[in-house]
Amino acid sequence: MIKNDLFLRALKGETVDRPPVWMMRQAGRYLPEFMEIKEKYDFFTRCRTPELASEITVQPIRRYGMDAAILFSDILVIPQAMDIEVEMKPNFGPYLPNPVRTAADVERVIVPDAKESLNYVMEAIKATKEKLNDEVPLIGFAGSPWTILCYSVQGQGSKTFDKAKEFCFTQPEAAHQLLQKITETTIDYLKAKVEAGVNAVQIFDSWGGMLSPEDYQEFSLQYINQIVAALKPLAPVIVFGKGCWFALGDMAKSGASALGVDWTCSPRNARYLSGGNITLQGNFDPSRLLSPPSVIKESVHKMIREFGKDRYIVNLGHGILPNIPTENAGAFIEAVKSYKE
Amino acid sequence: MIKNDLFLRALKGETVDRPPVWMMRQAGRYLPEFMEIKEKYDFFTRCRTPELASEITVQPIRRYGMDAAILFSDILVIPQAMDIEVEMKPNFGPYLPNPVRTAADVERVIVPDAKESLNYVMEAIKATKEKLNDEVPLIGFAGSPWTILCYSVQGQGSKTFDKAKEFCFTQPEAAHQLLQKITETTIDYLKAKVEAGVNAVQIFDSWGGMLSPEDYQEFSLQYINQIVAALKPLAPVIVFGKGCWFALGDMAKSGASALGVDWTCSPRNARYLSGGNITLQGNFDPSRLLSPPSVIKESVHKMIREFGKDRYIVNLGHGILPNIPTENAGAFIEAVKSYKE
Repeated sequence: MIKNDLFLRALKGETVDRPPVWMMRQAGRYLPEFMEIKEKYDFFTRCRTPELASEITVQPIRRYGMDAAILFSDILVIPQAMDIEVEMKPNFGPYLPNPVRTAADVERVIVPDAKESLNYVMEAIKATKEKLNDEVPLIGFAGSPWTILCYSVQGQGSKTFDKAKEFCFTQPEAAHQLLQKITETTIDYLKAKVEAGVNAVQIFDSWGGMLSPEDYQEFSLQYINQIVAALKPLAPVIVFGKGCWFALGDMAKSGASALGVDWTCSPRNARYLSGGNITLQGNFDPSRLLSPPSVIKESVHKMIREFGKDRYIVNLGHGILPNIPTENAGAFIEAVKSYKE
Repeated sequence: MIKNDLFLRALKGETVDRPPVWMMRQAGRYLPEFMEIKEKYDFFTRCRTPELASEITVQPIRRYGMDAAILFSDILVIPQAMDIEVEMKPNFGPYLPNPVRTAADVERVIVPDAKESLNYVMEAIKATKEKLNDEVPLIGFAGSPWTILCYSVQGQGSKTFDKAKEFCFTQPEAAHQLLQKITETTIDYLKAKVEAGVNAVQIFDSWGGMLSPEDYQEFSLQYINQIVAALKPLAPVIVFGKGCWFALGDMAKSGASALGVDWTCSPRNARYLSGGNITLQGNFDPSRLLSPPSVIKESVHKMIREFGKDRYIVNLGHGILPNIPTENAGAFIEAVKSYKE
């Protein structure tokens, strides 16, 4: 039994005294204790060494006491396990030297036994669960198939993911074949994560907002739906699509326990668009954590009043930025804990 | 009198046989005749030489016969005229070596006599009007004050414009002072453009979608409103905010004649959010011009049916991409011209 089950209760839609809080990328570069580890070990060493990944995961919990931990890892471990080479270049980000561009490239992509290929993730989960000692729940995550396709085809980050979209719009059959392979791998992977001990999973559709509503249905949502359907019997699923306000209504019908919302969607719009019954998670503008702590506190309380304290998980609208002062991150968490109706 | 006044009639909300069509960045890198000029002259030479700017402006009209021309220029001529140095680096984009970061920096920014400092733009307009020979209307444009601030503070393009947002959220007074200076310069500039001969103006808020709805009101919309109010008596104004679906309702009250819409906002949502009475412009996904011409035609006809043929200007949801085949751009224009109810 998890001692602080506020997060899990909010996912079930139960009435709570205050909403739970965590922050996307809470184990990250704004934390000095993370930077110490980062200076010593490269990115994939940190991901692949259970002792390091678990330590990084619990660092923010020790410092701030969030209501949930999220496993330190990366969405690109999936394409890597599928035999698509992924490098993490300092000051550049992900770089995939052999991007998928043709039907023949898609043929070469494998659907691995995720539990085996990504065994290091399962070991990291076990190590983290030991460190957390059932104090708070642990979240596991994966990228959406569309978002993984974006990197796999583009070969790096991008403002428009034009090559990924070109691939989908000129070679739709190959694109769907790749999306299906990613979907199967992701389902296998997330199931293994639940088995290893995570208490909930989140699907990050970071680049869904690049697509029109119609293309979103075709190239992203139908695959997310497959993942939700497969995982739902095992653990609560959160779906977060950045820029995907237009799909909140359909996402609410996917069977997900909660939907993430970014900061361009007001609480009122988010409740309206999602149909008003599903738990929502978000949506503080990460840059707004640069405001003075007193402004942060006031804005967080306003945000909770607007979303309502129930069926709500306080979070940012995207990952925390590296240049956020630790004091300001603390003000965000404290504002939630001090919230009273 | 303009011979083809379809565009101006749509801006007035008049009933038309088919909607007018033009494409954002229609004078651009997808055109071989543009690339010929680009190889010979650098970016600012092209902007500053009336013979070149006017030739580039009319190239797409000659090839495709769009219903409106848009003057070849750049939104960054404004900060340049305000004494903020702007370079255009090949394969990199805009680079501002001395970005605005402090209140003292803002003090040093000047509000120039736009007609004088940007006289080369007025000359380009006159040269273009001669070449167009009143066949179609000419659109002039400017960036929104927020979008100009983004570049002026960040110093280059960005996925998040984190430094620009940090400036606004930590030094709001200085930010507002800068926004007001940009607003005054822009009003002066657009008035001079109308005097020089443009038939309508468009304000591009390319980075408005980086802000929460509340911050959008504070840092972007109030300044756009000032520009619309000042220009409205002189020429119709189109406001296009990429990612600004959440502000369509307020923008519709600004006095603008039309609102631009990006491709993440369905025609139905756009009509609903904007209140249903204002002319809308958009919103074909630029990447979707990579589809085969037959698919383009079908999708354009569907889009027109969904927006409705009246109070509507067919366009892309953002600028045309350099890798679009000329045949596909032609299919887009032809699809509109062949549209029948």
